[in-house]
Amino acid sequence: MAMDYARRRSAAQAELARLGLDHLIVGPSADLIYLTGYNAHNIERPTLLVLPRAGAAYFLVPELEADKARAAAPDVELRAWSDAEDPWAVVRAGIGAGPWSIAVSDVMRASFVLTLQRVLPNATLRPAGGLMGRLRERKERGEVDALREAARRTDEVFDRLCGEPLAGRTEVEVADLIGRHLKAVGLAWKWSYICSVASGENSASPHHTLSDRALRAGDAVCVDFGGTFAGYPSDLTRTVHVGPPPEEFRRVYAVVRDAQERAFRAVRPGVAAEQVDRAARDTIAAAGYGQFFIHRTGHGLGLEIHETPYIVGGNGQALSAGMVFSVEPGVYLPGNFGVRIEDTVVVTDGGAERLNGATRDLRIVR
Amino acid sequence: MAMDYARRRSAAQAELARLGLDHLIVGPSADLIYLTGYNAHNIERPTLLVLPRAGAAYFLVPELEADKARAAAPDVELRAWSDAEDPWAVVRAGIGAGPWSIAVSDVMRASFVLTLQRVLPNATLRPAGGLMGRLRERKERGEVDALREAARRTDEVFDRLCGEPLAGRTEVEVADLIGRHLKAVGLAWKWSYICSVASGENSASPHHTLSDRALRAGDAVCVDFGGTFAGYPSDLTRTVHVGPPPEEFRRVYAVVRDAQERAFRAVRPGVAAEQVDRAARDTIAAAGYGQFFIHRTGHGLGLEIHETPYIVGGNGQALSAGMVFSVEPGVYLPGNFGVRIEDTVVVTDGGAERLNGATRDLRIVR
Repeated sequence: MAMDYARRRSAAQAELARLGLDHLIVGPSADLIYLTGYNAHNIERPTLLVLPRAGAAYFLVPELEADKARAAAPDVELRAWSDAEDPWAVVRAGIGAGPWSIAVSDVMRASFVLTLQRVLPNATLRPAGGLMGRLRERKERGEVDALREAARRTDEVFDRLCGEPLAGRTEVEVADLIGRHLKAVGLAWKWSYICSVASGENSASPHHTLSDRALRAGDAVCVDFGGTFAGYPSDLTRTVHVGPPPEEFRRVYAVVRDAQERAFRAVRPGVAAEQVDRAARDTIAAAGYGQFFIHRTGHGLGLEIHETPYIVGGNGQALSAGMVFSVEPGVYLPGNFGVRIEDTVVVTDGGAERLNGATRDLRIVR
Repeated sequence: MAMDYARRRSAAQAELARLGLDHLIVGPSADLIYLTGYNAHNIERPTLLVLPRAGAAYFLVPELEADKARAAAPDVELRAWSDAEDPWAVVRAGIGAGPWSIAVSDVMRASFVLTLQRVLPNATLRPAGGLMGRLRERKERGEVDALREAARRTDEVFDRLCGEPLAGRTEVEVADLIGRHLKAVGLAWKWSYICSVASGENSASPHHTLSDRALRAGDAVCVDFGGTFAGYPSDLTRTVHVGPPPEEFRRVYAVVRDAQERAFRAVRPGVAAEQVDRAARDTIAAAGYGQFFIHRTGHGLGLEIHETPYIVGGNGQALSAGMVFSVEPGVYLPGNFGVRIEDTVVVTDGGAERLNGATRDLRIVR
């Protein structure tokens, strides 16, 4: 996919002007990939994109990474610094004394932020998250295509998984199996990926990842995984059962499935993010399980697996066409089991589209 | 390995007192693992360790990760916040109005730093890198044992690799092979790992990672890889040759090997880090290749793969027993080939010990 990075940087400059800001400074991050295509190492040597409100952007890069930066972003000017130079002097010389209002990317490391404040004492720094979110939240067509393909291939992995014997394998072994299938369908793992396989009572902990517990008949098994296609991730959760489930599991499963469906149906342009959360939460509360739904309903998905918009109580942000996020209510009964069902959805002009097509019917596995 | 986290936190408090600081605030990072054992998700939901100069530390954690934090660090008090609460209000209430001098971990994300400055307007923040470096640089015996074991197993992977036919495989395929061998010897990959296989002219770029270029007879191949043992990494580089090398390669190889040896011999307590760099650099310059050694000689190695001390010109820091770092000079001839040789070394009371035992004799591979 060819992304139009120059157009994105122009959009960022328009945001700087709208907000009365002078510069945007971006370190290695999804923001940097979004604005330049350069996936830089996030190390102690500063790589920074400096984008003034008007004029051309430039990269400050360590000399030994200059070739990579040039290859990734041939249209951005480079100012390389060697290991024996002070990169911050280059920044100060490039930006000037100020006073300035500067937005810095949210995930820039603290030591860089505090050093910028020291070398630019007349600058006021603020997080660029809101500004970058406005750009990144509404996905371009090419981005949605990549997210859809990642979701489709992930559905296929779930189908394959359900066809394999799982009882007797440990959670770690099931994760290995998922990893092999992800690779087989052409998806990559991103560093920030957590592949979670939560079996039996572990499924009652929503952020359980993996253990050496072996799956056995009678277990609920909550699998939460994904991979990336062309840099864009999938994020799918399904809860299956090893052998026939007890009545209580079926009841909770039906409640979560219904909550997920109602939340999905609440998605359309103009609706507040918190209303989608509310749709899921009210459904679960009405069934008597409100106290066991202990997390938000979803998170945005794009170059990062967790990004804005967050589908959470208190977020009055209106949804717009092109936004992509997860819808993933869950119920967790401590010491017993948990159920979570998660799809990735995109807001369309008229409503919403699920990017995942994996069945939400209860799958009984071996 | 059982680490004594309470003792480490006491040492951090002694540093706070020595530096006249009131609090240390640490987000998800190697610093957090060092002080508590908790390897927290580095996500947009704040997980923070607050360590006052006197008194007990406490964790601010998202509610849905409270169980994991408690399991990892049972001796640290927890203050959990739910998705509907403002975690920063909890921080402000916990710390109080100030004025304070607060050290924050170097890699804390910018949005947290700027939010801390907003909710604690009477606080002065500074990077905790120096303070944490003083604690983390001199490794405990258990840490050196883990680093030694990681290095030993990585040497074994290099030996195995040299016994395999490599010509015809792409760099990516060789990296897959390395990954399988690392797993076979019981090492894990850490998210921050770069496994680099640079063949032919790619070897002339010190930060090349991987491509689909196939190895062939006549190639120099620079492999730079490692894995972790009990959370501690290895980092080994060797440059091999596919089939017999030309004279110029042999000459450069001998220069780099000599530079690496001289740098290693320069390591002992009391010597400045830059003198080790100087030993390597002078050797390479004397052979006429000075302009082609375009990076520092080494970096510290511990919970992070790049950490202090840095073995670089301008770093007058004195080495002490227990410090662990890489010694990795290289010569890179653009468009032709490059050679780098890297071992991990530990400073001992009387000098230094190489943790890697893989041969530095030139290996010719198939």
